[in-house]
Amino acid sequence: MKVYEFKGFPNPARVRIALAEKGLLNRVEFITVDVPNGAHRQPAFLAKNPFGAVPVLELDDGTTIAECTAITEYIDHVSGEPSLTGRTPKERALIHMTQRRAEANVLDAVATYFHHATPGLGPQLESYQNKEWGEKQRERAIQGMRFFDGLLANQPFVAGNDFTMADITLFAGLAFADFVKIEVPADLTRLKAWRARVSARPSVAAA
Amino acid sequence: MKVYEFKGFPNPARVRIALAEKGLLNRVEFITVDVPNGAHRQPAFLAKNPFGAVPVLELDDGTTIAECTAITEYIDHVSGEPSLTGRTPKERALIHMTQRRAEANVLDAVATYFHHATPGLGPQLESYQNKEWGEKQRERAIQGMRFFDGLLANQPFVAGNDFTMADITLFAGLAFADFVKIEVPADLTRLKAWRARVSARPSVAAA
Repeated sequence: MKVYEFKGFPNPARVRIALAEKGLLNRVEFITVDVPNGAHRQPAFLAKNPFGAVPVLELDDGTTIAECTAITEYIDHVSGEPSLTGRTPKERALIHMTQRRAEANVLDAVATYFHHATPGLGPQLESYQNKEWGEKQRERAIQGMRFFDGLLANQPFVAGNDFTMADITLFAGLAFADFVKIEVPADLTRLKAWRARVSARPSVAAA
Repeated sequence: MKVYEFKGFPNPARVRIALAEKGLLNRVEFITVDVPNGAHRQPAFLAKNPFGAVPVLELDDGTTIAECTAITEYIDHVSGEPSLTGRTPKERALIHMTQRRAEANVLDAVATYFHHATPGLGPQLESYQNKEWGEKQRERAIQGMRFFDGLLANQPFVAGNDFTMADITLFAGLAFADFVKIEVPADLTRLKAWRARVSARPSVAAA
């Protein structure tokens, strides 16, 4: 397997953490796509993902998989423990619901703020910006953080008792928030404690 | 099982089609949430989905599942044929990737156009609008249609040889596009032929 990515970026981090959790990091060849210089918009990469986003997983038969949830589904089903996407119908549903909420309300909201209300990747790459929309998504991200803080009142991880794909998405979202200087509100102590627990996982250090 | 929804709306249609494909329509009690009059923003419904969106699946133990992908994962794993989310790691990855692309680039783009660049659900419910962003999402939806037309050059359904969750999402996206008068460009003949095939499925008529 190959993963096309840019190390340190939030979506590539999701895939690295998932691989590390499954013990698969050393089965993957990582190939850098020079996103800051626009390599993700060049034909060579667009042939792998027409939507121009990293990461992309390339299987040994040449099939390319984009979108982190899809890549995580592959990684989770190709190998055993621990399960990141759930085993029962109910577990799967709760994890996918929570994953999607973390993506829409934190990670993607922060990304939209970055690309629209800050210089983002610079004037060459940010050819369209809508600053007002970007600022609105900053508010949405903070509301999202508050929602997850509430969830963590009753359970150790965001989709229940186990660490899953949903925790990975939220963790990447908060890392991106740090990068763009959207602070986690001081009163969200459960979210901060959860983050410290996730940070301490060997997979996160290895990724 | 109960499904809280508003019949005829695009996201509820996704769940109805999935249930019909699995032969589960008659195992579900459908409960109408009066979205046009704002019932989805009232405490009774927000207790089921804090993000205020239909549909929501309620299991017999009281667990509530929002987000169509999550609901479809439940439905698909709780019952047998046909598989809507795939059986092998590679099938699962391709279906989730294509589903997400259909959601982001067609269905959600059309929804954003509706809520931001048209009167949407009316001035009471559309308390914040960003018309320029809405118009941009209209363009994105049309580009998304073009992408899917290209995919269909080589395969009968958007994720491969079989009808899946990804087709359901795209089909709901095109129905929403009709409603808001975003026309499928005339030259997208493969997309139109695919749509006619999907429309003819018994599940779509039953839903």
